[in-house]
Amino acid sequence: MVMDTIFKTNKKEVIIGENKPFVMIGEKFNPSGFKALGQALVKKDMEFIQQLALRQVAFGADVLDVNVGYANIDQPQMMKMIVEAVQAVVDVPLSIDSNKRDVLQAGLQIATGKPLVNSVSGVESQMAGILPMVKERGAAMIGLTITEEGIPPTAEERLAVAGRIIERASQIGIAIEDIMIDPLVMPVGGDSLSATVTIEAIERIKQEYGVNICLGASNVSFGLMERHSVNAAFLPYAMQAGVTCAITDPIKLGGIIRAADMLLGRDINSVRYLEYARQAEILRQAEQQ
Amino acid sequence: MVMDTIFKTNKKEVIIGENKPFVMIGEKFNPSGFKALGQALVKKDMEFIQQLALRQVAFGADVLDVNVGYANIDQPQMMKMIVEAVQAVVDVPLSIDSNKRDVLQAGLQIATGKPLVNSVSGVESQMAGILPMVKERGAAMIGLTITEEGIPPTAEERLAVAGRIIERASQIGIAIEDIMIDPLVMPVGGDSLSATVTIEAIERIKQEYGVNICLGASNVSFGLMERHSVNAAFLPYAMQAGVTCAITDPIKLGGIIRAADMLLGRDINSVRYLEYARQAEILRQAEQQ
Repeated sequence: MVMDTIFKTNKKEVIIGENKPFVMIGEKFNPSGFKALGQALVKKDMEFIQQLALRQVAFGADVLDVNVGYANIDQPQMMKMIVEAVQAVVDVPLSIDSNKRDVLQAGLQIATGKPLVNSVSGVESQMAGILPMVKERGAAMIGLTITEEGIPPTAEERLAVAGRIIERASQIGIAIEDIMIDPLVMPVGGDSLSATVTIEAIERIKQEYGVNICLGASNVSFGLMERHSVNAAFLPYAMQAGVTCAITDPIKLGGIIRAADMLLGRDINSVRYLEYARQAEILRQAEQQ
Repeated sequence: MVMDTIFKTNKKEVIIGENKPFVMIGEKFNPSGFKALGQALVKKDMEFIQQLALRQVAFGADVLDVNVGYANIDQPQMMKMIVEAVQAVVDVPLSIDSNKRDVLQAGLQIATGKPLVNSVSGVESQMAGILPMVKERGAAMIGLTITEEGIPPTAEERLAVAGRIIERASQIGIAIEDIMIDPLVMPVGGDSLSATVTIEAIERIKQEYGVNICLGASNVSFGLMERHSVNAAFLPYAMQAGVTCAITDPIKLGGIIRAADMLLGRDINSVRYLEYARQAEILRQAEQQ
């Protein structure tokens, strides 16, 4: 049995759990590979930022991830500006995304309610530096199964890293339900078994620790042609294996995710699916005009 | 362990089996809901028919299904004409699709090699009428888990119908490896558990009888908006559960199917996926010009 993970703004709460609607964390606030966003950061174009926030939420994002990892900008200052700008236009909780303490700290100060920290890896210095910040802020967190040696090749080893992160977090008083684990997926183009290893890790971590699994799923298709087909085929497998939350593109993959929830018998009378499809159709028509 | 099902023309053989590339039977030759095809049948426009055959094969169809169920045409004659026209331009085996003996007979006479009969239901008169034709022609066949009372609501009952079809076919000497079963999927919009029932039926029939499962998968999305998302999410589940073949649209769903094969670890070095994606890209560019 998986425990519910809850985080929230002052206005909106998100509950992640088994047999609950799958939670989409919008991934678009990430300047790597998204040139227009990088330029908006450099120009401090908060209009662009706010439109991107509104668009993701309109397409069903329950949470927005904010990553400001870009060259030649003051990242802590930028994190503060974006969190403020986004909170001014949408109510959803935020996922503060960095591996730098000062950037995380900046986001956690400005975010209202109980935000999500993305992420804490199994690297010793990261656990020592970031877990106390999570505890002090009363935030939820994503633990990444990666160590000083990189991403372990087997499900067994990723389970062990998840265990170490959970143990260290628990020792300083972070509640187990505030911890989600991302067992990571490597590009399937580089290793034909990378998806099956991740699926096994998902099942074992869920079984062993009863935590929610939050997958950054798009990496599976890295380097391949027609990435959308690979991402769209992988999400149903991950959801069936027990993933309850993903950092993903709600505009491209929301339909697949809502359909998978429905096919798994988790959407009685297709209510959420139809709501999603209607809303998406209206938005796409409006954008084409 | 699932036995290999083989059928062929004089020029090309298709092998369906576990851990083999998933086999796509192109579904486009079906005039219900495809008005332009209906009109082509009425006009005996064999140019249209041949282009549709070439396009499906170019997008990766391993087999082509031929259904001439349309009003106001001589269906046996039309079946002969289409089989001849299609065989003149492509080498792939054909799936002769009808529940009428005279239409099936017409297709089986003209088809070269060893064709597929789609389908034989669990209705007594259908088994008595069609199984001997399958045996006499040395064809392969798809058995549908449907009876006089309709499609049974439970996986248990669909397993029982599959067993009756297999038993009756075996009694008259049809080899078990020439029988594939379609456990059928009802629209998920009408019953939230319809996909999970079918997944269970797939697993149980495969386990019990070791036959290949060939799913007409598109029905799952009937009546819903944005049907593509539902079909795209369902196929990976069906493939993981053990479906080895589907009657489907290779143009819309080939990418998802090749991606799912790859994610399940069945496409070493992504060879088939990349071949598919390259070919599809070239074709789409050519069609846009």
